[in-house]
Amino acid sequence: MHTPSEPGRPPLPPAFVDAMSERFGPRFSLAQAVRAHHGHDESHFPDALPDAVVFAHGADDVVFVVDTCRAHRVPIIPYGAGSSLEGHILAVRGGLTIDLGEMNQVLSIHAEDMDAVVQPGVTRKQLNAALHGSGLFFPIDPGADASLGGMASTRASGTNAVRYGTMRENVLALTAVLADGRTIRTGGRARKSASGYDLTRLLVGSEGTLGIITELTVRLHPVPEAISGAVCAFPDIVDAVNTVIQTIQLGVPVARIELLDALTVKAINRYSKTTLRESPMLFFEFHGSPAGVEEQARTVQEIARDHGGLDFEWASRPEDRSRLWAARHDVLFASLNLRPGSRGISTDVCVPISRLAECVDGVRADIDASGLIAPIVGHVGDGNFHCVILVDPDDPAEIAHAEDLNRRIVERALALGGTCTGEHGIGIGKQDFLLREHGREAVDTMRLIKQALDPHDLFNPGKVLPPA
Amino acid sequence: MHTPSEPGRPPLPPAFVDAMSERFGPRFSLAQAVRAHHGHDESHFPDALPDAVVFAHGADDVVFVVDTCRAHRVPIIPYGAGSSLEGHILAVRGGLTIDLGEMNQVLSIHAEDMDAVVQPGVTRKQLNAALHGSGLFFPIDPGADASLGGMASTRASGTNAVRYGTMRENVLALTAVLADGRTIRTGGRARKSASGYDLTRLLVGSEGTLGIITELTVRLHPVPEAISGAVCAFPDIVDAVNTVIQTIQLGVPVARIELLDALTVKAINRYSKTTLRESPMLFFEFHGSPAGVEEQARTVQEIARDHGGLDFEWASRPEDRSRLWAARHDVLFASLNLRPGSRGISTDVCVPISRLAECVDGVRADIDASGLIAPIVGHVGDGNFHCVILVDPDDPAEIAHAEDLNRRIVERALALGGTCTGEHGIGIGKQDFLLREHGREAVDTMRLIKQALDPHDLFNPGKVLPPA
Repeated sequence: MHTPSEPGRPPLPPAFVDAMSERFGPRFSLAQAVRAHHGHDESHFPDALPDAVVFAHGADDVVFVVDTCRAHRVPIIPYGAGSSLEGHILAVRGGLTIDLGEMNQVLSIHAEDMDAVVQPGVTRKQLNAALHGSGLFFPIDPGADASLGGMASTRASGTNAVRYGTMRENVLALTAVLADGRTIRTGGRARKSASGYDLTRLLVGSEGTLGIITELTVRLHPVPEAISGAVCAFPDIVDAVNTVIQTIQLGVPVARIELLDALTVKAINRYSKTTLRESPMLFFEFHGSPAGVEEQARTVQEIARDHGGLDFEWASRPEDRSRLWAARHDVLFASLNLRPGSRGISTDVCVPISRLAECVDGVRADIDASGLIAPIVGHVGDGNFHCVILVDPDDPAEIAHAEDLNRRIVERALALGGTCTGEHGIGIGKQDFLLREHGREAVDTMRLIKQALDPHDLFNPGKVLPPA
Repeated sequence: MHTPSEPGRPPLPPAFVDAMSERFGPRFSLAQAVRAHHGHDESHFPDALPDAVVFAHGADDVVFVVDTCRAHRVPIIPYGAGSSLEGHILAVRGGLTIDLGEMNQVLSIHAEDMDAVVQPGVTRKQLNAALHGSGLFFPIDPGADASLGGMASTRASGTNAVRYGTMRENVLALTAVLADGRTIRTGGRARKSASGYDLTRLLVGSEGTLGIITELTVRLHPVPEAISGAVCAFPDIVDAVNTVIQTIQLGVPVARIELLDALTVKAINRYSKTTLRESPMLFFEFHGSPAGVEEQARTVQEIARDHGGLDFEWASRPEDRSRLWAARHDVLFASLNLRPGSRGISTDVCVPISRLAECVDGVRADIDASGLIAPIVGHVGDGNFHCVILVDPDDPAEIAHAEDLNRRIVERALALGGTCTGEHGIGIGKQDFLLREHGREAVDTMRLIKQALDPHDLFNPGKVLPPA
């Protein structure tokens, strides 16, 4: 009926295929094209196709799938929008991909309580479209129009986490199906609770290895009365970073504070036809009352001036801000465009803010020494930044060289008290870093939890935890 | 050598006592007075004395104690300041209490990163004293001068969680000893991380049942440039609550917004010799820049006026604010003073803010119907409020009557989508509510985790999880 995608992997049990086909009809697929679509993400890792794909339409579908997979010992990989960056959705051990993208209903919006209940396939843009006119928005913005289930699973964040937090702070409750088929609800809609173990936070960031999310309750935030933006160039990247550090330390509630190095600005100018000064640059956004926004901006402008900031340029009109942030959002494509045909390997370290200048400066030296092209861009208000290492996807030696550079960058960040991933997750790419960051004892503790909840290792196997 | 505190409980194994005595000398105690001191907390539950007490001075002591307790299957109860409210530290199954109060060093303050590393016995006031002059403070304020280890264990919060979050948001990382004797470090000092399972949040709120905290890294916040306070009386409690709801919904970043019912105000006037109008009242505190604070206060004043607010009174001078908040902090004692010799049973529900007026109004009716005296006070910006039910500690029938009232209040909150505990925790008092709130499947999932990490049920047994 079909062949597995990897030589040597046993085919799906016929009884499993029959049970799935009977229940799901055409929503269960063994077709090569469907499997191929679900067998790659936005990472640089080689494709790894599942043996089959099913499109779930509801929580009962998910329970059926989990029960059937468990009965036949078939691995199961949850799939949202396919925008993850560390190989999370690659079927490295084959099995079934459960595509939750069609579970995309916004179930309820509680404007008075500033929360929304959504299915996991709802994307952040879709939720914000549904919120249009409500006076509320969902802030987390990882760049891609990711699914909220996927964003919860990778503990995503993005440009405005410095003000609004990450998925950790913005998921109030989850409904999830566990590997034994049970459905749990991890919390309610109260803003705080001291009631029992925090299963919500245990699932957030577990990358589909502990449960399959079927519903999320997320926090919403009031659309600020006033928003203003600004850009400022700096003679050196360290000056820009020091501006960030002082801004955070003064408690300015900046909503976004993004660093772009000179190479990134050059890439943006080329790609987005802008005329920004090609030197390190900070993009700011301020949210608040009109007076509050003005005060924040004035404070930051003074700090920037003290650090050699040049051309502090306002973008108060929405169209100017949109243009700026569109340019910021296009950074990945703009960067890739620096080297046509290349693919980006994105690093993702995050360090305590006091070490940020030292870290960025060292990383820049690492990049220079490597001879690779890697623009730097970051959510620096949190101490998080990325290098987009441009590689020829058909040159394994260059990819290995880029992975070496990534390793050096992670080692540098860990030595400075940082983490190997601020927001992209572990997936298949960072398991050895997980071990180095947390130590054997903590990782073994994660393993005990995994074994307790998924004793047959069927939920996204081969992800997060390194081999024992 | 000693007798256990409960008839029918087996005595401590002599080999255990020998091993502990040898290592700890006088820091290991079987004395009745020491056991009695550690066998009661601020709850109304009957004292339950441990069979012995040990005073730990370092992480290696904790590891030794855990290993020795495990070898002899002796239960172990971590003890901080003894200020918990749900029987968390009662030795309901005997065993050893490990007093961490002498592990009270502030290990490091990273002012630039706005975090501090402390031992678990450091109290919140002690930490804030150590921060004096740094421009930073630790905001979480549960009223009592609790230990930070205990506050993490109960997921504590308090008056300013509406602005600064709870212990969930303010613990960056923990070091803990698990039941198998291993020491884990759950995170680093980076502000965000997507690196593996969130062991920090798993331990926060686990009430000593999963690990014994030996070190905490907590977030600090900049001391606001300006602070102002205000009080406002309302004709009815529902008007006050509606003022809160609208304030939150408008996104005013109020730092504290506390509700007191008329009875509480009366109690304060009597106890603190104040002359507040004896009607429902809100206490506000605003943090920010001078202009920002003024703007927030003006907005709130307008909202209050729209809801019939009377006597909006400013407290801009530090001494006026201190007097107000001292009165607020004394609410428990002031309330107890309404009925000399009484003890308070504190309820702790938290509901979505849209249901807060309905909940408070219903609870007031419940109290009236019960015939009990129970002033209402709450951190209403989060939807969290307490009734301090005054009971005669020597009247079991009245205590049972008060527990009935508490049950009715919890049921009301759960029916409104709330939680049985906003900040006090489950302890021994709310295990059946835990089950009703989360359902059997979720609670069984918590149990799987407990069994995986503490298979012999030695860490604070009888707490959080209801009997299977």
